[in-house]
Amino acid sequence: MEIEFVNWMLPLIPDDPRLEVPAGDDAAVLRTRGARRTVLTVDMLTEGVDFVLGANCSAKQVGHKALAVNLSDLAAMAAQPETIVVAVCLPRNSDCMIPQELFKGIHTLASQHDVALAGGDTNTWDGGLVISITALGSVEPQKAWRRQGATKGDLVVVTGPCGGSILGRHLTVTPRCREAQMIATRFNVRSAIDISDGLSLDLSRMMAASGTGCILHATDIPIHDDAMTLSQQSGDDRSPLEHALSDGEDFELLLTLPAQDAKELVADPPAGLHPTIIGEVIAAQGVFLEDATGTQQPLFPKGFVHVFNK
Amino acid sequence: MEIEFVNWMLPLIPDDPRLEVPAGDDAAVLRTRGARRTVLTVDMLTEGVDFVLGANCSAKQVGHKALAVNLSDLAAMAAQPETIVVAVCLPRNSDCMIPQELFKGIHTLASQHDVALAGGDTNTWDGGLVISITALGSVEPQKAWRRQGATKGDLVVVTGPCGGSILGRHLTVTPRCREAQMIATRFNVRSAIDISDGLSLDLSRMMAASGTGCILHATDIPIHDDAMTLSQQSGDDRSPLEHALSDGEDFELLLTLPAQDAKELVADPPAGLHPTIIGEVIAAQGVFLEDATGTQQPLFPKGFVHVFNK
Repeated sequence: MEIEFVNWMLPLIPDDPRLEVPAGDDAAVLRTRGARRTVLTVDMLTEGVDFVLGANCSAKQVGHKALAVNLSDLAAMAAQPETIVVAVCLPRNSDCMIPQELFKGIHTLASQHDVALAGGDTNTWDGGLVISITALGSVEPQKAWRRQGATKGDLVVVTGPCGGSILGRHLTVTPRCREAQMIATRFNVRSAIDISDGLSLDLSRMMAASGTGCILHATDIPIHDDAMTLSQQSGDDRSPLEHALSDGEDFELLLTLPAQDAKELVADPPAGLHPTIIGEVIAAQGVFLEDATGTQQPLFPKGFVHVFNK
Repeated sequence: MEIEFVNWMLPLIPDDPRLEVPAGDDAAVLRTRGARRTVLTVDMLTEGVDFVLGANCSAKQVGHKALAVNLSDLAAMAAQPETIVVAVCLPRNSDCMIPQELFKGIHTLASQHDVALAGGDTNTWDGGLVISITALGSVEPQKAWRRQGATKGDLVVVTGPCGGSILGRHLTVTPRCREAQMIATRFNVRSAIDISDGLSLDLSRMMAASGTGCILHATDIPIHDDAMTLSQQSGDDRSPLEHALSDGEDFELLLTLPAQDAKELVADPPAGLHPTIIGEVIAAQGVFLEDATGTQQPLFPKGFVHVFNK
């Protein structure tokens, strides 16, 4: 049935001038454009950790998410998405619709971002569903955003509200690819990361890579309605702010820019984006949270971390 | 522990001039060389299907195999390996040595083929071990070998003996990257594929892609000693030739070349390679096996195929 699935899928993949050899051979051959750099990232999603197939999560949504989290990594580099390959491992007795729905989820989002599907690998086994997408993008030499580069005096900007993504938003991720490229053409972005594991954790990674720290203004952090809802659920003992700081899978971008650039970005953002200034970069390492009274406390980074051999 | 593992691994990855941004950021940034094309492939291995961890298979061997099968795909395109990204999903309670041994297996083979490790994604879950490697190579425009292109009158060449890889060779795969590039510079290779799923199955795929067929000479097919051994095991009801035709995971190359090129290749092969002419391409579709008496029979392609929803 693998061959039937691949034979069903291949004609659905449109011709793409970027592919000298398209999907269906031992490998694809890509035409690269001029002197642009290739930006390369991979993310793997696993059943039970990144999604639970069922009434609240379709295979199509899994396909969407698997691509979206990769495109979000490309956005965090200010790269233009170009090409993907997809490796999937399906439970042996799974419904034949699962690979087709996965493909639809990938294909729909790929079309929206003009991404070419260049190939893949389809397997079956006795375990759960695993999907790994590798995404290639392009960027001008030396123009990729890095985690390092934050400079004392930069302001910290987040591109949207955070927290509570587990209520469903983690499946309907909107990667900020176009917005990132627009921001890159207009502003001096000194460092960037996307929020996959939690605002505080990913921010601390960016600060560590830059050799800097930052002060976050608690009252300025945009809290998503989902974080409010989650906080009010019985058994939940965390405030909406705590959810916004540590829930993860928001897939908004965290950027640092010189103060004037940050202010102009917030005053005149790309359409549909609602960026907010949430803090400033300092020379001392660490992330500190300043409350409404001006009191500062070290913020211990919290978020999602895979643990081996616990 | 994921962060500790990544922090352990990153300093072990040597600097590479091909990487403008190395592993450790949201994505890697690759410098591409001149007008060469990028060749892109992905292969995923799963525990219980592609390997069984234990006394006869170490995590280091899994790492080796995961990279080798990808490099074999690049060899089948005559591409020079350049860069990889690795996504891995580890059983939650697995030994901490497993990711380190996986990495060693990958790193050792990568060094031998001058391949840069550009990044990855490390996950844990309650399932078995899954590893997916995406490999990038390069080739001159229009110079990648294809499955299509076989022409009536071409001779079919296999680069080494086949069969019985399950006895252990499937874990110690030698990808034919250098040999493929040498062959590409000297000979007119009209079509190519690597033997992953079985000589007869992969040959039938190459013939189908080319719109041609071929006649295989049974007595010319190089049979690996492992195929002999396997055939003699109690309960095994297949001949050494049947093993050579259908076992798979030989990761030798199947090539078709004009007769003179094929003969010269076999007479003066790259060092260490023992190519053999095993048949000829015909206009009629299908693969036929000719025995010592000259009798031809259709060869039903057999080999390894993943089956969904059995």
